[in-house]
Amino acid sequence: MDSTATSRLLNSIHVPTLLLDEARARRNIQRMADKCRKSGTLLRAHFKTHQSAQVGDWFKQAGIIAITTSSVRMAAYFADHGWNDITVAFPVNWREIDSINALASRIKLGVLVESIETANFLRENLTAPVNVWIEVDTGYPRTGIDWQNNDTLVALAQNLQNHPLMTLRGLLSHNGASYACRGHADLRAFWADYVARLTSARAALEAHGIHGLSISPGDTPCCNVINDFTGIDEIRPGNFVYNDLMQVINGSVTEDDVAVAAACPVISKHPERAQVIIYGGGVHLSKDHYIDQLGRNTYGAIALPTENGWSKIHQKSYVISISQEHGIVQCDPETFASVNIGDLLIIIPVHSCMTADLLKSPITLTGETLDMLVLSAP
Amino acid sequence: MDSTATSRLLNSIHVPTLLLDEARARRNIQRMADKCRKSGTLLRAHFKTHQSAQVGDWFKQAGIIAITTSSVRMAAYFADHGWNDITVAFPVNWREIDSINALASRIKLGVLVESIETANFLRENLTAPVNVWIEVDTGYPRTGIDWQNNDTLVALAQNLQNHPLMTLRGLLSHNGASYACRGHADLRAFWADYVARLTSARAALEAHGIHGLSISPGDTPCCNVINDFTGIDEIRPGNFVYNDLMQVINGSVTEDDVAVAAACPVISKHPERAQVIIYGGGVHLSKDHYIDQLGRNTYGAIALPTENGWSKIHQKSYVISISQEHGIVQCDPETFASVNIGDLLIIIPVHSCMTADLLKSPITLTGETLDMLVLSAP
Repeated sequence: MDSTATSRLLNSIHVPTLLLDEARARRNIQRMADKCRKSGTLLRAHFKTHQSAQVGDWFKQAGIIAITTSSVRMAAYFADHGWNDITVAFPVNWREIDSINALASRIKLGVLVESIETANFLRENLTAPVNVWIEVDTGYPRTGIDWQNNDTLVALAQNLQNHPLMTLRGLLSHNGASYACRGHADLRAFWADYVARLTSARAALEAHGIHGLSISPGDTPCCNVINDFTGIDEIRPGNFVYNDLMQVINGSVTEDDVAVAAACPVISKHPERAQVIIYGGGVHLSKDHYIDQLGRNTYGAIALPTENGWSKIHQKSYVISISQEHGIVQCDPETFASVNIGDLLIIIPVHSCMTADLLKSPITLTGETLDMLVLSAP
Repeated sequence: MDSTATSRLLNSIHVPTLLLDEARARRNIQRMADKCRKSGTLLRAHFKTHQSAQVGDWFKQAGIIAITTSSVRMAAYFADHGWNDITVAFPVNWREIDSINALASRIKLGVLVESIETANFLRENLTAPVNVWIEVDTGYPRTGIDWQNNDTLVALAQNLQNHPLMTLRGLLSHNGASYACRGHADLRAFWADYVARLTSARAALEAHGIHGLSISPGDTPCCNVINDFTGIDEIRPGNFVYNDLMQVINGSVTEDDVAVAAACPVISKHPERAQVIIYGGGVHLSKDHYIDQLGRNTYGAIALPTENGWSKIHQKSYVISISQEHGIVQCDPETFASVNIGDLLIIIPVHSCMTADLLKSPITLTGETLDMLVLSAP
């Protein structure tokens, strides 16, 4: 690490800014890529966390060739940056059919279907070939067909077959209930169930003569702790590239695996309540929060800038409250004493997907500003 | 209202989009401007809610000449759009001193100070004239000097006097505790206290020979219900231009005064749980939520598109949960039956400041896309 460059970078920061430790992010990518290669599993990494062309390049350099996005616009951005095999892991939005067709005509596009209505819509409105995934609800009731609802699964799969522009590829599921797990044993048991449910749904389809389907599970908490994915066609974790406090508290990583942090100017100190006020609020960090190990409702953890990035977390201090532009940091006496108005405080985010989406273009510790998807007016 | 234009607009929407009812926003502006004019009070409207040059023009047309922003960058945006008298209602961020000086050299800039350290910093680093406001904490302990802390108030006011580039203008306070009030009587009592505390702090300074200071309170819940501001130099509400569910639940307005709503495509219907899933999640609506009149934890209220905008709120339905891109709407049977995949559902935001900041450029019901501050990489 070029510590002079990092110091220069920190000195140049005027407003809340997302810092990105490239070495950590590359290590996170490499670790997941290695596990997948050894398992014979495709890592179709979800890119919604970073949304950055250059971070995408780091994945390419680790041998990743297929990705996931959470929107059609995000898929178009990465198609513009050379990605040729993209699944949009969000049920088809009929209103974007023109964009879907345009994208399908230039890359290998995967789409998600979870209703007969949408299958019929695609039959009538597609003009270019797509890979189709059926979304399965494996215990996180948001979108998807319940994994035990064989009748609907079979009817939908049959509907999706025998159309010249649709290739039914498999069963895809995001089971976000894994975020409630705590510890490796809990996550491993959760993963076993999760995969078993997808496998069971696939078996039900096979029993009706529908063969050759892949399964695509994958969420960061589980994929961080599972080392062997043998038998699983592809996984789609995304958050692991950056990680965050949610991953630390579920035990899937340590704080040394968190690759992003928000650098926030210190605006004010209030000794009578041991609080430091930072320029860094809901429009920068998001209002995501969680109950930490000490039972505190936390909007972010606290670290100090160092020559090479940022320090270990100061466990006794935390972001206690947040408004649009202000963050209030409840401090232990040592942290309070070590911070002055005009300094930068480092906030480790609760949920890096949301913080990265708000702060946009991250800056690496060597001072490189990365490109990131910015949505213009609709 | 041109209903053909509205229908055309709604048909053209593909992704989550902020709709703006210009007539309602202009009515909200006019009402506040009229009350201030009658009271002899300056309406220094806070522009953090809309952040839009054109909405700013509507204020100009209502006679408003002075504004508030929540950041230096937002002040620079409005200075670029012809505003010449701007207070940044956020304590001076030392790291932005170059931008502050640049702005102060071209407009009448007001800055906020709440510590001796920052007063000293300004004494040494200002290169252009500024108006200075002391921030007072009148019962919302975030930033500001406690209104009863006379020693510090006097010391700070004395420090800020007698500097060639600083003009001490007065005492400014944002008392966000008003958001916990319910009903007009509650808000009126709150406002009386709030103003009395600022007046008392001013009297303490007068007792020490510091005369001629203005007071600047102002938050939307109170300013929506107070009709007579006589004796108050200026007020700084902002949210009132759009309003939102928070203002409806505190009783300061009705739903007919809410000028913005998010149009979100319907992605999926799950009859077994009476839920409709929309394309509209935390990155669009924010994760702000509140407990509504029925005790439900709500992320947004539901309406349907109409020829002229949107319908009354469907009280029995609501946004029950939100993730990054998905919103889950718990529906009553009638609402569920009246919505189809591919339709738009209208979400009335809990907190319009956050939703507008996320969705960016609003579209008026006649189809005009408005400009809005977009922060580039730092």
